[in-house]
Amino acid sequence: MDPQWRDRAATAPVARIATVRADGRPRVVPCCFALTGDRLYWAVDHKPKSTRQLGRLDDIAAHPTVSLVVDHYDEDWSELWWVRMDGEARVVEDEDERERALDLLAAKYQQYRDHRPSGAVVAVTISRWQSWAARPVL
Amino acid sequence: MDPQWRDRAATAPVARIATVRADGRPRVVPCCFALTGDRLYWAVDHKPKSTRQLGRLDDIAAHPTVSLVVDHYDEDWSELWWVRMDGEARVVEDEDERERALDLLAAKYQQYRDHRPSGAVVAVTISRWQSWAARPVL
Repeated sequence: MDPQWRDRAATAPVARIATVRADGRPRVVPCCFALTGDRLYWAVDHKPKSTRQLGRLDDIAAHPTVSLVVDHYDEDWSELWWVRMDGEARVVEDEDERERALDLLAAKYQQYRDHRPSGAVVAVTISRWQSWAARPVL
Repeated sequence: MDPQWRDRAATAPVARIATVRADGRPRVVPCCFALTGDRLYWAVDHKPKSTRQLGRLDDIAAHPTVSLVVDHYDEDWSELWWVRMDGEARVVEDEDERERALDLLAAKYQQYRDHRPSGAVVAVTISRWQSWAARPVL
């Protein structure tokens, strides 16, 4: 993927992650994340949870393949673009990797510097990048 | 679903729709839409397409169940919220329903008043609403 698209993805504050439930139905939810190369991390943090919000962890256990999109909306549709990252998700078990992932998240979000996530950290190994823009970029 | 959440969903300019590909992997993409009751419509419009953008139509043919989310991001995480709509998608074949759907889309988007979509119109019958907010709403 072109570096410009990687930068657009990396600097976006929020992505939306689609997972597949055990029964095959999709689920989509917004997600804070940090990107490094073809690896993306997100963490179960201190934001209040609804009882089902972490259904996505159950989904990943059943179906590790996930899809994330970062996009820009504008009333001027010639400004629209999106970047999609598809890959395999897993809960990070290795303590060193977990700390590195939390460092990346803390570098991106003040909230994680103030309150380091204590819940599960999930890694997504991106196997496919796709981008789209309403008009040519660069 | 509470009327306030319906309004938040209905007035958002963009949702993200998750579909499941024929092979079971998820796909997520941003999506303009119009909402009426428990029915949501989106249309294949004049925005430039990548060769794969309409993969979501193939996905729906294989797996009609879709999930859409509308959300608000804010640097102040106490302002975060999202609304998710899960349901069954189908391409609208009935001409009257198609015209009504395009009227709804045109009422919401100036771009559709200027350029009425000529491609497929998809209806999603919402069977489940779910919402989340970082702090209580109202």
